[in-house]
Amino acid sequence: MADKNVFNEVPENLGFYEEAIPVNWEEFKKVAESRRSIRIYKDDPIPENVMRECLRLTTLAPSSSNLQPWEFYWVRSPEKKAKIIEFCLSQPAAKTAQELIVCVARTDTWNRNRKWMVERLKKEPNTPPVAFAYYEKLIFWVNYQGPCSILAPLKWLITSTIGLFKVMPRFPFGKKGLMMWAVKSTALACENLMLSLRAAGFDSCPMEGFDEVKVRKLLELPTDALPMMIISAGKRKPECMYGPQIRFDQKHYVFEV
Amino acid sequence: MADKNVFNEVPENLGFYEEAIPVNWEEFKKVAESRRSIRIYKDDPIPENVMRECLRLTTLAPSSSNLQPWEFYWVRSPEKKAKIIEFCLSQPAAKTAQELIVCVARTDTWNRNRKWMVERLKKEPNTPPVAFAYYEKLIFWVNYQGPCSILAPLKWLITSTIGLFKVMPRFPFGKKGLMMWAVKSTALACENLMLSLRAAGFDSCPMEGFDEVKVRKLLELPTDALPMMIISAGKRKPECMYGPQIRFDQKHYVFEV
Repeated sequence: MADKNVFNEVPENLGFYEEAIPVNWEEFKKVAESRRSIRIYKDDPIPENVMRECLRLTTLAPSSSNLQPWEFYWVRSPEKKAKIIEFCLSQPAAKTAQELIVCVARTDTWNRNRKWMVERLKKEPNTPPVAFAYYEKLIFWVNYQGPCSILAPLKWLITSTIGLFKVMPRFPFGKKGLMMWAVKSTALACENLMLSLRAAGFDSCPMEGFDEVKVRKLLELPTDALPMMIISAGKRKPECMYGPQIRFDQKHYVFEV
Repeated sequence: MADKNVFNEVPENLGFYEEAIPVNWEEFKKVAESRRSIRIYKDDPIPENVMRECLRLTTLAPSSSNLQPWEFYWVRSPEKKAKIIEFCLSQPAAKTAQELIVCVARTDTWNRNRKWMVERLKKEPNTPPVAFAYYEKLIFWVNYQGPCSILAPLKWLITSTIGLFKVMPRFPFGKKGLMMWAVKSTALACENLMLSLRAAGFDSCPMEGFDEVKVRKLLELPTDALPMMIISAGKRKPECMYGPQIRFDQKHYVFEV
């Protein structure tokens, strides 16, 4: 029997329900299956409202403790666009793109967002007290690293020691740990963006081969914000792919245990 | 004008095309909009073939250089399932779940997978020579960190120095850098899994509050494999949610620049 903790102390009835609306499995499969990384785009533009809707769906992805540690920069000014293309080493997936979105993981917004969560939860009639404890205390101590991450080794020591005797989630340790934490949630949203673009009849390419330092400077981001992916978008051009989709045999990465 | 490099040296015609099949925007929106993190599930099982199909769609997500650094453990044995629930601190989203999938980011499969990519590309008639250079040389030097990551500081120094004078993608530096690299691609696939479950008429909850050390041990994973998320799945029960979906105002994280 597990101890009582902030995770399992949840009432049997959370008091809120949203119906599982009927969805179309076959239509979704078409979207997931036809998403390919496109290297060369046509000149057809993506309507503004489509881009905005795709960006809205992007941020419907879940995030760690709903702290939404992401930012999406839709690069529209021709000067900035030219710079971003250059920072992507002028690869065709950037050069021929109609739109470019810089996806940024932030390690410095969790404390602001945690307070916003508390404000929002106060407006909900059924928020259990445990939710306030979670955002007001637990999240703070899980994510707070102290000045210059001075608390990171201590947190590691504490969780590792407790972990010898009982089940203990491991915290993000230090700046790198927090960065990994933010990257994880931001990537969930990135996939939403790429699928949304496909579902809207457009295509995309996720790029990691770019100069993150120069991109950070161009967007005037602090050093603890990581431009982690640039997604280009447009309509696929004939002969725009390297070849058929390659996935290794599922037996190498899907296991039933 | 950018220098010639392995990224922009791509022929105008890549020689392969897959048509952008018609897709249904409204149906996709329903999937993305109705995905919620579910805390309490009904007893309805998920058919085996649905789970397998969702796991197949999971791995259709793109990955960095297509190196597929992910693994998904569908936990089916009752003993292991009980353990995983315990390691998730017995939270209701785990305890009431029909299925549990441990999503693992691997930092130690890229070299094997890079060689597999070369083998597969050899079978394609139109692979440009630059693709072989990419997988045979560039990827190796980008990801290789040397014994005990001894090369990481050197790589940092080289890319930072070159970066002062020209556009330079920054490598993953050391074990933590590689981990972040693997986490990013694996999270893209995680979002595919959650959307696929929803599209198939089921629900999910991504969990990060678990004891990754004990999960790693249970699944007999090496220390450089990171169980980064456990996704639970089932059918949502009435009153299974904390409240309405909370997203902060888009103006805080979607910017047009």
